[in-house]
Amino acid sequence: MNSLNSEFSVQSVLNVLQSVLPQSTSFLPLHEPSFGGNEWLYVKECLDTGWVSSVGKFVDRFEADLAAYTGVKRAVAVVNGTAALHICFLLAGVKAGDEVLMPSLTFIATANAVSYCGAVPHFVDSEEKTLGVDPHKLAKYLEEITEQRLDGCFNRHSGRRIKAVVPMHTFGHPVDLDPLTETCNRYGIELIEDAAESLGSFYKGRHTGNWGRFAALSFNGNKTITTGGGGTILTNDEDLGRMAKHLTTTAKVPHRWEFNHDMIGYNYRMPNINAALGCAQLEQLPGFLSAKRDLAGRYRQAFAGIPGISFFSEPSGSQSNYWLNTLILDEAHAHSRDTLLQLTNDAGIMTRPAWTLMHRLPMFANCPKMDTSVAESLERRMVNIPSSAMLGSGRTDA
Amino acid sequence: MNSLNSEFSVQSVLNVLQSVLPQSTSFLPLHEPSFGGNEWLYVKECLDTGWVSSVGKFVDRFEADLAAYTGVKRAVAVVNGTAALHICFLLAGVKAGDEVLMPSLTFIATANAVSYCGAVPHFVDSEEKTLGVDPHKLAKYLEEITEQRLDGCFNRHSGRRIKAVVPMHTFGHPVDLDPLTETCNRYGIELIEDAAESLGSFYKGRHTGNWGRFAALSFNGNKTITTGGGGTILTNDEDLGRMAKHLTTTAKVPHRWEFNHDMIGYNYRMPNINAALGCAQLEQLPGFLSAKRDLAGRYRQAFAGIPGISFFSEPSGSQSNYWLNTLILDEAHAHSRDTLLQLTNDAGIMTRPAWTLMHRLPMFANCPKMDTSVAESLERRMVNIPSSAMLGSGRTDA
Repeated sequence: MNSLNSEFSVQSVLNVLQSVLPQSTSFLPLHEPSFGGNEWLYVKECLDTGWVSSVGKFVDRFEADLAAYTGVKRAVAVVNGTAALHICFLLAGVKAGDEVLMPSLTFIATANAVSYCGAVPHFVDSEEKTLGVDPHKLAKYLEEITEQRLDGCFNRHSGRRIKAVVPMHTFGHPVDLDPLTETCNRYGIELIEDAAESLGSFYKGRHTGNWGRFAALSFNGNKTITTGGGGTILTNDEDLGRMAKHLTTTAKVPHRWEFNHDMIGYNYRMPNINAALGCAQLEQLPGFLSAKRDLAGRYRQAFAGIPGISFFSEPSGSQSNYWLNTLILDEAHAHSRDTLLQLTNDAGIMTRPAWTLMHRLPMFANCPKMDTSVAESLERRMVNIPSSAMLGSGRTDA
Repeated sequence: MNSLNSEFSVQSVLNVLQSVLPQSTSFLPLHEPSFGGNEWLYVKECLDTGWVSSVGKFVDRFEADLAAYTGVKRAVAVVNGTAALHICFLLAGVKAGDEVLMPSLTFIATANAVSYCGAVPHFVDSEEKTLGVDPHKLAKYLEEITEQRLDGCFNRHSGRRIKAVVPMHTFGHPVDLDPLTETCNRYGIELIEDAAESLGSFYKGRHTGNWGRFAALSFNGNKTITTGGGGTILTNDEDLGRMAKHLTTTAKVPHRWEFNHDMIGYNYRMPNINAALGCAQLEQLPGFLSAKRDLAGRYRQAFAGIPGISFFSEPSGSQSNYWLNTLILDEAHAHSRDTLLQLTNDAGIMTRPAWTLMHRLPMFANCPKMDTSVAESLERRMVNIPSSAMLGSGRTDA
């Protein structure tokens, strides 16, 4: 290692990014979609036939394609990932006053969707190896704070029932689901995966989102595939899958002309025109995943010799979609994070830090939490870098 | 009037419909969209530029165009009309435990959105002349059941605050807003228009949705213009308009890279690709309205000589969009409604009855209500008939 490489500098990080990324005169975003497939054809078909809205063949096909790809029994397409989480929680029986365990290191949607049920987020720590919920630390914590009652697992301090845990597969990297599932089973806590970021990510060969009764996907514009705005409820319970469809389509009772609704429902259905986009995008998913893996491989190689910072690679036993590539500063250089963000964004390369930890936000500041020292450390040190599929090449596996 | 016309028969109604409507071998829907404008161009621009999702120029333009057309200070585009109503209620200060007055004769969205706030729908009667809230009957009812307290108007029977009234402009026909506004002012009850069906409908020359601080529009696939799925919050309060945008976009605080959110927000933003459709549709609205008015005129004329049934025309002083054309059976023939629905649908002409009254649905059966005898009578007698703009011709004013 030569002397130039022996000390950390934000400039050296920028240099490496510039060596991997294409030279561009315009701002390079964190993640932009590619529409090189049948998007045009399918969307045009919607316009030509007039089927753009709440009913249409692309919704049915998108749901079937997603169920087949992820291996779940039923997929229900909705307006976005937040709506998908909301319905997962409702169907899992999360009630007002319950607590739902989730990482403090997550996007706001996870916590908001719990709030819509009148339930209370309860924040847990993450681990360095996956960037997601630390199942071992969680198990110890639950041993300390819970007691089993006839109607579930209760937080002895708050007196509230702990109904579910929502691991979020951060930037597409799977949480360590085996020990987490074991903990859930032991404590009678429902596992609901927030797989918003992990379409195309597998844990021990099985798709993320296929490990509990419910999971949520997202197809926001910045995701691996996009429907404009969209999300999906994945479930392995066919009855609850039917109920998810019912609940997301205003709970209307089928009839040739009558308008009857049998419960308070939601208008969460994905429009057909958005599903058309989704069908075309899903066809290209294998190519996107290969290209993103190629890009991640190039980043990994390029950052291998750089001191003070490391490229985050998929956890052992998992295959990640590398949705958002991630650099992690050594603790000693955490103070340089904002300088690095400034320098790279000024240079036209979009980078961003992790989300502000949920327990720091004013509306969740009083929610229960365990020690979150690892999440706090990660928050100080993580930086996402450009990750669009179009930046990777070919279908070569990295 | 000859003997054939002197008695009511469902067959004669079908004959009239067939005389007005084009002969078709396929099923004629109640309302289908027309995409003969710039839909393709604008949607293709989204795909070509990659801007399909949460940010993009069509969202801004659609909001500006809608504000200009309806005359309100700010329009905020969201995923659908239900979401728009939900945000209107939140911003108007509807709290858990409040009551919100609304017609029992409405689509489920009005009542569902109130429920999302933890508030209670309180059902009121409609009037024959507008098919919407009867402001005079409501005023008398409020005199009987309410008392004023320092913090608002209270229902003496339930002890709950009555926070708002939500007139819904049924099938596009404006409610009698002047006396309703007067009643609202007298009792300190907020007027929130459910204008989901009334884009292009004017009351005394001013657009519906522009009479209170808040209103909601819908652009579902069956509406006068469509965005696939979509809705809009209209407001005449600029500060609350900014808050509506904030609340519907996850309450994220603007920053170059940080992710901070300052309240529990919603992921309700309309994707750019749907707004692109909306911009193209809105350009054609004057033509759609003329064609629909032409169709309504032809229906009116054709049904003029038919005994036992009448075509519903816009209330005096209002200009309706004639979103869904409506036949009303005389009370003596109400028992023939289902036979008429059967005969027409079997003949390939889609017709439908009014929505089941809200107070009959199981989840709202215990909500407070006034006498709703007019709504009940209308429910028994109303039938919607095909109303697509493409069935009307030219821009001739009927």
